Amino acid sequence: MKTLAYFYQKEREIKEKGGKVIGLTLTSPTFPSPPLKKRVLRLLPHSFSYSLSGGNLNLRETLANFYSKKWNIKLSKENVFIGNGGKEILFILLNLILKDGGEVIIISPYWSSYPRIVKRTKGNFKIFKTLEKDNFYPNVESLAKEINKKTKAIIINTPNNPTGKILREKDIKFLVEIVKKKNILLISDEVYEIYDFEGLYCSFLKYFSKNIFCVFSASKIFSMCGWRLGWCFGDPKLIEEMKDYQADLSTSPHTLSQLVVNEILNDKNLQKYLEKNRELAKERRDIAVDFFSKKRIDFIFPEGGIALFVKIPQRFRKASQFAKILLEREKVSVAPGEIFGEEKFFRINLAVNIEDLKEGLRRIAKFY
Amino acid sequence: MKTLAYFYQKEREIKEKGGKVIGLTLTSPTFPSPPLKKRVLRLLPHSFSYSLSGGNLNLRETLANFYSKKWNIKLSKENVFIGNGGKEILFILLNLILKDGGEVIIISPYWSSYPRIVKRTKGNFKIFKTLEKDNFYPNVESLAKEINKKTKAIIINTPNNPTGKILREKDIKFLVEIVKKKNILLISDEVYEIYDFEGLYCSFLKYFSKNIFCVFSASKIFSMCGWRLGWCFGDPKLIEEMKDYQADLSTSPHTLSQLVVNEILNDKNLQKYLEKNRELAKERRDIAVDFFSKKRIDFIFPEGGIALFVKIPQRFRKASQFAKILLEREKVSVAPGEIFGEEKFFRINLAVNIEDLKEGLRRIAKFY
Repeated sequence: MKTLAYFYQKEREIKEKGGKVIGLTLTSPTFPSPPLKKRVLRLLPHSFSYSLSGGNLNLRETLANFYSKKWNIKLSKENVFIGNGGKEILFILLNLILKDGGEVIIISPYWSSYPRIVKRTKGNFKIFKTLEKDNFYPNVESLAKEINKKTKAIIINTPNNPTGKILREKDIKFLVEIVKKKNILLISDEVYEIYDFEGLYCSFLKYFSKNIFCVFSASKIFSMCGWRLGWCFGDPKLIEEMKDYQADLSTSPHTLSQLVVNEILNDKNLQKYLEKNRELAKERRDIAVDFFSKKRIDFIFPEGGIALFVKIPQRFRKASQFAKILLEREKVSVAPGEIFGEEKFFRINLAVNIEDLKEGLRRIAKFY
Repeated sequence: MKTLAYFYQKEREIKEKGGKVIGLTLTSPTFPSPPLKKRVLRLLPHSFSYSLSGGNLNLRETLANFYSKKWNIKLSKENVFIGNGGKEILFILLNLILKDGGEVIIISPYWSSYPRIVKRTKGNFKIFKTLEKDNFYPNVESLAKEINKKTKAIIINTPNNPTGKILREKDIKFLVEIVKKKNILLISDEVYEIYDFEGLYCSFLKYFSKNIFCVFSASKIFSMCGWRLGWCFGDPKLIEEMKDYQADLSTSPHTLSQLVVNEILNDKNLQKYLEKNRELAKERRDIAVDFFSKKRIDFIFPEGGIALFVKIPQRFRKASQFAKILLEREKVSVAPGEIFGEEKFFRINLAVNIEDLKEGLRRIAKFY
């Protein structure tokens, strides 16, 4: 099966050869990042040495304060770990909790990297399938029944990629109790935290305990994918093990990235900036939703996130077949649903400029 | 056993509390980096999106050309993989070649991360001990006899960290033949490539084949440790697998780091810059060698690299005991030899400013 990297690589190759392609494969936002020029120049002299494994102490403190205030909880820098993107965090975490084998439960449709990362560990995954008729929203009671002796963790993704669904607070509370009772880990990937269009988003941080682990990233909220920075909150004992692992994997995260993000998080205009980004994403969500509704093309209504999960035309058996021909004929690259565990859907990235989005939508609709 | 990270962390903690400590723990050079300001400003607008797994195509091509010319061989961008530092490269490589178990041979004294990384894989390591009486230079015939059915690779480090020894070309040729015959991998960590004070250094690249894998890094040659960038050359099939692995681990290396290093490598003043760095390191090597010779303190003569491996005073049983008390009493942090597999030696980083080095040496000698 083709990976997401494969489709992205194809998209890049066409571009590098001077071809025109509308790239909607990866969910990497291209909204304006916070102002960086002056910051980078000022911080450059401090960028040359390693930082600490687990990340710069100042940034860890900033993050602990920021999220403590946001969710009215008490986090300290001992709860924080910083990685080369959210992905390195999940890679380290899953390798640690599955070091003696065991299973994690992954909800389908899933971010393609969850099963791929688990395959790199000593453990396995079990897929919990959500259904199209439920708009791919998980039934948490059924989910809880999947937990068995082998279960080490459940991975939640809210706002969800690729579906855009947001887990309701009552379901969060339910799961918080379950993982406490079963003494397993609830890993909540919340990298799309700011993209909440209906006021539904609640972080698992609100109910933080030693059984909760939450992941966030600069890539998605600051449109700084290339700067490779993510952070997470967890039990201090687990965080210590993660630092130790990172010391063997990549020493420490990128120093300049950390210094810059620390300043951004302490900027008095931060909330305004994040709100603006949310609006930009909502504007695109609304355009795509209106467009596909008018064209009577089925999709999952995204309550958040920066992606849209769309049903393939009936004449195609599989999304990868659809995506391949769409790229060849219409020069639009999308992510086929097989990658997320749903072969009848494909995902488009909404966080691009509006002209590209509209042109991409037009080409896709033409192909139906 | 205390890790290197532990001693570095201690050193940093004392500094962060405002304490004065001479930090010689890590071998991270603090020589002037190439000019970055203008480059960073110009490249900043291109820094926001992911690059490709395995690294930016332009930089891969630059690296292939650069090393092809340097060693008079023919490398293409398909031979190149770029990682978040040399460490991520070794982590991915060792996880791949040991994915079904097996062993790698590590020569002692070794860079502390080799065994630590292997412990994170499904394989094991076997230590080949070199002796103080041979100045810790390996006998390659004896080394070859250690290869058995389980052996997947031998790790070489030249110029060596911590000993500063450089593998002679005749021994390189011998090993190149051996690994070809046995069809195993020769992993050569050559991150200290430019620090060759006696004209002895030869890269395994000169005899490149599908059994050779060489690692290099921006950290050591450009004093850009915080920029987390390393690169390597290997067989295209293995490089493909590594890209796939990185896609699950960290997506892609830091975009700005790659853009900047690509410009540095294409700078017409590059050779002059590297030569200057070599001279700075040699100056420090000579100072330390003279100092300890006069004080009649035993050390291993470093032919290259940026470290000095020094014998502990007879009254101490172990280097970790020595290092701990040295840090407490004299406020000099060094790396105890247990970390490298030699409990009677400790390592000091020479690539610091001369005043710090001299003061560090003075305090160490005082303690003898």
